[in-house]
Amino acid sequence: MTEHLVSVSFQPSGRTVDVPAGTDLFSLMVNLGLKHANTCGGKGKCGKCKVKIEEGLHGLNPPTETELKHLLPEEIGRGYRLACAVQIPPVPFLSVRSPSSGPSTQKLQTEGLAVSVPPDPAVKKYTIRLDRSGSFEEEGVADELQERYGIVCLMDYAALTMLPEAIERGKGCVTCTVYRGETITAVEPGDTTGKCLGFAADIGTTKLAVYLVDLRSGEQLAFSASPNPQVLYGDDVMSRITFAMAGKGNLLTMQKTLLKEIARLVSGCCVQAGTDPRWVYEGCIVGNTCMIQVFLGISPKNLAFFPYRNLFRKGVTVGVKELPVRLPVHRTARIYTLPLIAGFVGADTVAARLAVELNDFREPRLLLDIGTNTEVVLSDGNGSISCSCASGPAFEGMHITYGMKADSSSIDRVSIDPETFEVAFHTIDGAKPAGICGSGIASAIAEMLKTGIIGPNGKFRNDLSGSTERIKTVDGKAVEFVLAWKHETAVNTDISISQKDVVEVQKAKAAIYAGCTLLMRQKGITADQIQSLVVAGAFGQFVDKGSVQTIGMFPEVAPGRVHEVGNAAGTGARIALASLPKREEAERIAHTTKYYELATDPDFTGIYARAMLFPQRRDHDAGN
Amino acid sequence: MTEHLVSVSFQPSGRTVDVPAGTDLFSLMVNLGLKHANTCGGKGKCGKCKVKIEEGLHGLNPPTETELKHLLPEEIGRGYRLACAVQIPPVPFLSVRSPSSGPSTQKLQTEGLAVSVPPDPAVKKYTIRLDRSGSFEEEGVADELQERYGIVCLMDYAALTMLPEAIERGKGCVTCTVYRGETITAVEPGDTTGKCLGFAADIGTTKLAVYLVDLRSGEQLAFSASPNPQVLYGDDVMSRITFAMAGKGNLLTMQKTLLKEIARLVSGCCVQAGTDPRWVYEGCIVGNTCMIQVFLGISPKNLAFFPYRNLFRKGVTVGVKELPVRLPVHRTARIYTLPLIAGFVGADTVAARLAVELNDFREPRLLLDIGTNTEVVLSDGNGSISCSCASGPAFEGMHITYGMKADSSSIDRVSIDPETFEVAFHTIDGAKPAGICGSGIASAIAEMLKTGIIGPNGKFRNDLSGSTERIKTVDGKAVEFVLAWKHETAVNTDISISQKDVVEVQKAKAAIYAGCTLLMRQKGITADQIQSLVVAGAFGQFVDKGSVQTIGMFPEVAPGRVHEVGNAAGTGARIALASLPKREEAERIAHTTKYYELATDPDFTGIYARAMLFPQRRDHDAGN
Repeated sequence: MTEHLVSVSFQPSGRTVDVPAGTDLFSLMVNLGLKHANTCGGKGKCGKCKVKIEEGLHGLNPPTETELKHLLPEEIGRGYRLACAVQIPPVPFLSVRSPSSGPSTQKLQTEGLAVSVPPDPAVKKYTIRLDRSGSFEEEGVADELQERYGIVCLMDYAALTMLPEAIERGKGCVTCTVYRGETITAVEPGDTTGKCLGFAADIGTTKLAVYLVDLRSGEQLAFSASPNPQVLYGDDVMSRITFAMAGKGNLLTMQKTLLKEIARLVSGCCVQAGTDPRWVYEGCIVGNTCMIQVFLGISPKNLAFFPYRNLFRKGVTVGVKELPVRLPVHRTARIYTLPLIAGFVGADTVAARLAVELNDFREPRLLLDIGTNTEVVLSDGNGSISCSCASGPAFEGMHITYGMKADSSSIDRVSIDPETFEVAFHTIDGAKPAGICGSGIASAIAEMLKTGIIGPNGKFRNDLSGSTERIKTVDGKAVEFVLAWKHETAVNTDISISQKDVVEVQKAKAAIYAGCTLLMRQKGITADQIQSLVVAGAFGQFVDKGSVQTIGMFPEVAPGRVHEVGNAAGTGARIALASLPKREEAERIAHTTKYYELATDPDFTGIYARAMLFPQRRDHDAGN
Repeated sequence: MTEHLVSVSFQPSGRTVDVPAGTDLFSLMVNLGLKHANTCGGKGKCGKCKVKIEEGLHGLNPPTETELKHLLPEEIGRGYRLACAVQIPPVPFLSVRSPSSGPSTQKLQTEGLAVSVPPDPAVKKYTIRLDRSGSFEEEGVADELQERYGIVCLMDYAALTMLPEAIERGKGCVTCTVYRGETITAVEPGDTTGKCLGFAADIGTTKLAVYLVDLRSGEQLAFSASPNPQVLYGDDVMSRITFAMAGKGNLLTMQKTLLKEIARLVSGCCVQAGTDPRWVYEGCIVGNTCMIQVFLGISPKNLAFFPYRNLFRKGVTVGVKELPVRLPVHRTARIYTLPLIAGFVGADTVAARLAVELNDFREPRLLLDIGTNTEVVLSDGNGSISCSCASGPAFEGMHITYGMKADSSSIDRVSIDPETFEVAFHTIDGAKPAGICGSGIASAIAEMLKTGIIGPNGKFRNDLSGSTERIKTVDGKAVEFVLAWKHETAVNTDISISQKDVVEVQKAKAAIYAGCTLLMRQKGITADQIQSLVVAGAFGQFVDKGSVQTIGMFPEVAPGRVHEVGNAAGTGARIALASLPKREEAERIAHTTKYYELATDPDFTGIYARAMLFPQRRDHDAGN
């Protein structure tokens, strides 16, 4: 197959990639992390992915009906097209100008902490030269590896099948992929030691993040993220478990849906890094217990009923060949899922602990990984205890009327004038708002609370509805507060917070607060003893600490002791990918962290109910 | 699926099996090892698989055209049918009388030596009961196995996926399949320890043999054999290697062809033993180096050119999932191919040595495994040396004008009157002859030599052609000797030995003789020092020792020191299947047996050429 490669450059950044002719321009830009202002996802409906083709125009497919609808004839004449309607033509060079071709500011996922672990991965490559006169090439390979590199290993079946061709094509020089210093899992002709990659994936209930890593250096080469496509089967973990159990084949359907999306993200990372996917030899996966079980195709029924036991704790190793969807990696690649703690507290929490090195501190520290399920770990010199809080996806922008993922057009900060109730909002990228992301929701509710629009019980105060048009009423009852008027938005409708939205936030923050409180009780630790409260997850990274304090989401820890670390689970996955000793540490963390089942605590309901209330009128009183 | 099972009994043996309605009667009888006198293989051409349906006649399909051609109307009226035209009808009971429904006397394969090894297989099953109150069922399983049985093992991914359903269906009682005492490879509900089978397969160049074994007892439950379907790609090893190298995909085609036939034989063994194939957890494979490489899908190119090196020696373990054809065994089953010695001397020779315990003797012993490739091992107190002789398939009945595999209708013994040249022949089962098997060929040529029909150089003596009509001539030149006249045979033609057949035998026996001679020279051992000459392979089991001596196939060892052991390779495969310590012994044998490449010996050609001659006129002279 002789593929025609086209050199595509994006302006104004000048970034250039070589891709096969026929590639879809929209997907390419998504894979490269170049943002579109699109909302339709490349379906040709919104007309927002307008680009200008500056060179290579002559080879393009003719404009589609969608383009004719969204673009003026003179625009088309000047080279304007919709990226979603353009296939890269078989020209030598294509230059694309996009108003938004800088690196994406999509903030669905954050890239977490920088990893500073000495690389010592499970997969390493070694080049050897075989003396062609000897017999038993398999033994010759093993002998050379021992003599030159001091490693004693056996060749597995898959590697053996590659041996004859590798020796022939490499003229005696071959490169062995060695797994865990024990097994030769692949043999390639020539010296390919420079190509040794792995990927880490964080499977959140709502979102997926994939990192491509150079295993030799631990360096991150590319990053790609998308919503977890399993939301089709339910927004939260419990509804997915219910779906998985509802019919024969449902689990497999969910597993395949998830694997296909991970495959797409890995593929995108490889395009971004300009690398062939067959150089990817390992994947490290983190996620909560249910996500890990679904990823592995293991029925999550155990998690459906009290006491929500998990079947296993250890990390699981599986060959990509054993999975029902082909991942775009080397055919002998292994996948390692990090170990689980217990119940829903899974590999993501283990990874987050690995990333923040919670084990290394003796003073009390609290780790919260906020997501659709929020996991809490409380550690001190006497060990760690964890729990899982069903916080729901409100802080990920779901179940909120105008909620959306954190991207350039989402409101992430709100301020309300206590006198006029006029609103100043901020979107992540300064674009016209299309909705509100998790941190925006927390900010808006904190402001609404401070200005008395809602009371400590979360109810809209009816007496203010006459003071501002922003408070909308139904039958004389205040039910909604407008943050952005229709003309200010990108979605041609008012963006507001409803009574229902407030209740969603109350439920979420109450679950988290109750979890923290009960763990602290178990250890006899009070909030003022907590030296450090580490907030992981995309939510924590963008949220204003004051808002969080105002709505009472966390225990009352001094703001200076609160630290945001972004996607610590993803960081932990990259650490485990890059370091076998850290992987062993992960196994130790999983086996030594106690699990506390909130549902068994008789005080849970009471604490949860009280935590539904917003904590303090002080800010509001002070504001008045 | 509710399958209608029919109880089918065969008379006169009374053997009864339950099979699904719709099963093909001919195939069932083949699978059960019930012989047919057929020669067409169930293709509806020969009319020889006549049976009488004694009960259940009313449900049968109407007679086919083939049946109407081969059976008289009154026969059909009395219940006679051709097995190849009958599908088992959906009746409760079917009784079939077959003139030949005793156990098969098909002698293509022999079942080899009885195995008397204490069973200690790689796969063992253990039942445990889980305390349902605990968490982490995976760890509960491992803990129970350690407490109750003292084995420390890890559960692999496949077993983990089975765990939830096994616990639920088994109500806490599960059975673990443990591989090599290290890995839990499957988990089943309830107590299934009574079902733990394995199969051994001997992949000969010309023939395949499969044995079904109860791993707990080592007992053989069933046996099935057939020609190696790879003969399509060449009769001998070299032509198959040439085919494998001739085109992309050829190796895979050969591998699949082989695997499909092994799958069919395993399936037949399971029907015979009345067992579900999913209770089969392991397979042990033996064969020469080329057969093992093709089985594994590893290019045999290394064997195509001098110095015919082999790539590897160690036994190879492969999951059935990794093979391109699904074998009818448990989906987690492993296949173990026994180790190889060097060059073409492969796992079959290692297995034969395992079977005859050649390591345990200090006096010189010679092991010959006669087949299309004949392997020779010479052992004494100073170790073992081996070689491979390209003897060709003459002694397996191929490349011989009227050659056939050893079955009931093959001539296996011949005697020629030195005065009248009249022939007395014997077929294995006393049936009318359809051809000559390997032992019959050796016997006929020995007699022809003794009676002077051929001379020591193998040429027909022209001066006798007037003495008997059995010597046929072309242009006055004797070219053929008739063993059975047309009217005496089942094939409606004279069965004879041609000049070409004699040459084939000369080439075969010369290759074997030269191999033995050169190994003896290497060790400085003479024929009279050999204490024991062990002949393995089907040929050795049926052949008359005198004939072999007459044609000079082996070194001149006293007849009392020659022992036939049948299919020792198959026996060795069963031993390795039943005993992990014996498998380790096999690895030692492979690594300590020296290999001697005949092609490198400057004397090979001379010795081979001299060995083409028949050795002695003494018997002939004595006979005169």
